[in-house]
Amino acid sequence: MLSLRDCQNLINSSLAGIGLPADPSNLYDPIRYMLQIGGKRLRPCLVLLACNVYEDDVRNAINPALSLEVFHNFTLMHDDIMDNSVLRRNHPTVHSKWNHNTGILSGDAMVIKAYELLSLSPEQMLGRLLGIFNSTALRLCEGQQYDLDFEQRIDISINDYLKMIQLKTSALIAGALEMGAYIGGADEGHIKKFHEFGMNLGIAFQVQDDWLDLYAEEKGFGKATGNDIICNKKTILLIQALQMARGDAKEELLSWIRKKDFNPDEKVSHVKAIFDDLNIKAITLKLIENYYNIGMGCLDEIDAGRDRKNELYSVANLLLERKT
Amino acid sequence: MLSLRDCQNLINSSLAGIGLPADPSNLYDPIRYMLQIGGKRLRPCLVLLACNVYEDDVRNAINPALSLEVFHNFTLMHDDIMDNSVLRRNHPTVHSKWNHNTGILSGDAMVIKAYELLSLSPEQMLGRLLGIFNSTALRLCEGQQYDLDFEQRIDISINDYLKMIQLKTSALIAGALEMGAYIGGADEGHIKKFHEFGMNLGIAFQVQDDWLDLYAEEKGFGKATGNDIICNKKTILLIQALQMARGDAKEELLSWIRKKDFNPDEKVSHVKAIFDDLNIKAITLKLIENYYNIGMGCLDEIDAGRDRKNELYSVANLLLERKT
Repeated sequence: MLSLRDCQNLINSSLAGIGLPADPSNLYDPIRYMLQIGGKRLRPCLVLLACNVYEDDVRNAINPALSLEVFHNFTLMHDDIMDNSVLRRNHPTVHSKWNHNTGILSGDAMVIKAYELLSLSPEQMLGRLLGIFNSTALRLCEGQQYDLDFEQRIDISINDYLKMIQLKTSALIAGALEMGAYIGGADEGHIKKFHEFGMNLGIAFQVQDDWLDLYAEEKGFGKATGNDIICNKKTILLIQALQMARGDAKEELLSWIRKKDFNPDEKVSHVKAIFDDLNIKAITLKLIENYYNIGMGCLDEIDAGRDRKNELYSVANLLLERKT
Repeated sequence: MLSLRDCQNLINSSLAGIGLPADPSNLYDPIRYMLQIGGKRLRPCLVLLACNVYEDDVRNAINPALSLEVFHNFTLMHDDIMDNSVLRRNHPTVHSKWNHNTGILSGDAMVIKAYELLSLSPEQMLGRLLGIFNSTALRLCEGQQYDLDFEQRIDISINDYLKMIQLKTSALIAGALEMGAYIGGADEGHIKKFHEFGMNLGIAFQVQDDWLDLYAEEKGFGKATGNDIICNKKTILLIQALQMARGDAKEELLSWIRKKDFNPDEKVSHVKAIFDDLNIKAITLKLIENYYNIGMGCLDEIDAGRDRKNELYSVANLLLERKT
């Protein structure tokens, strides 16, 4: 059985061999840069690990896994432009190191490169893999669009939010697992269970990401920044609070959202106090726990011995930063 | 046999049925808009017409043709952002009607939609069609990158220019013909000839596009704008002139290129006078003629009766705005 570390090594060495041309350098250098500044390669590893549940030889899964990793990095390159981000993985973003046009065009070339890698899959699997890839990819765009739409909105329901993160975050995790299970030879019912496992894990992961921005210390994972509060990001915490707050608390929350001039620390501490009064921290932890449990239930039901699924359990716990 | 008009109708009605979702509307409305503001649908028609050379029933070619048209429109949507263009086909460009982020993200979704349409091709053809599509698409990105690079350069050779337009313009025309011929059942040698026909036609078409910007009246096609001269666009006319000009003429040309403040009409008339002295107009016409003839020679050699190729001859002449 492959460990996560084995998979990461396999993905990194394979990524180094995908053969990007030297010229035009302004097109391909940013792609090389983006692929080299790291990341944990979790999504392509999920393709390999899901395949490995059924099949010791994961070679058929490598190109599909690489295609998802390249696609994932393309979405980051374009999202960074849309979000005006200057840093990614502690390195300058492509559009800030080069320029906007380079970020757009190199990203475009990455999508095509992703499909090129996918098309190296075994021919008899190509149709199905393309189907999973296309529907996953389109969902990511839809999720990013809803996320952009949310910036202009205040009336977001918990369901709106959950729909958005299922598209933007969970779909790629679910798609990776689905592809891997299909390549490994799982039957349709179990491919579907892998998908469900990924969707629920993805929701838990994204909700936790929101939670950690404010409460990271409490899990012993570095320093919480409260940056989402400063930027009025429509996190599950804020959406939940906006739904629950009444009277003066609601007014105060809305006034902090509307304020243009403020002291960041003061904003974070006041908004956090409102969250505390509403018990947002515990409610959100409960939500994470809930989706985590549903996801793990799907993994439990998958038709393979515990030893063949062990690494997937570990990765799920790693993703959710659980010290089990 | 299908006429160009038949193909255009078939493409337009099929495009209307590709089933874009309603939501998120900020993602899909710009795609609908871009596909509805027209265009002559020449590239997808070339897929159908090339197929029709060998095969009366072109149904297998429709989805691949649509995928190329959607991809072509995606490149226009992103190119318009990179070029800061406000108008496309006499309508506001997507990023100026909506905003930059919409232009980026809706374009991204179009690429995936293009691959989704391609994946509806007959399964046994999918691998090869994907191969043609991917290499075509990547060439377009490379061509656009060289074109952007040229904006910062003055030392461009005719060969640099020809390489750029082969990537940016010819590759898609060649790819369309190659796909159609393959779907129709052409053998490898003749698929290659279709490709060559498209490459040469594409070069002739793009060189003519440069030529018409300054000399349109002389072919009776609307008013020449001289806009490329005003913007210092690295057209074949300017590149040729920079290579040929000597002494004072070269100095004058360079000084017009460097000037920040100028009267546009004055710049156009002075630069045009330099072009006239260097005989640029006739040299360029000769170049167009040359590539046109090579392209037509390839079409002549294709193994089908004249009656089955008639419409391709007409479209080539239409593309080159020849009144033959």
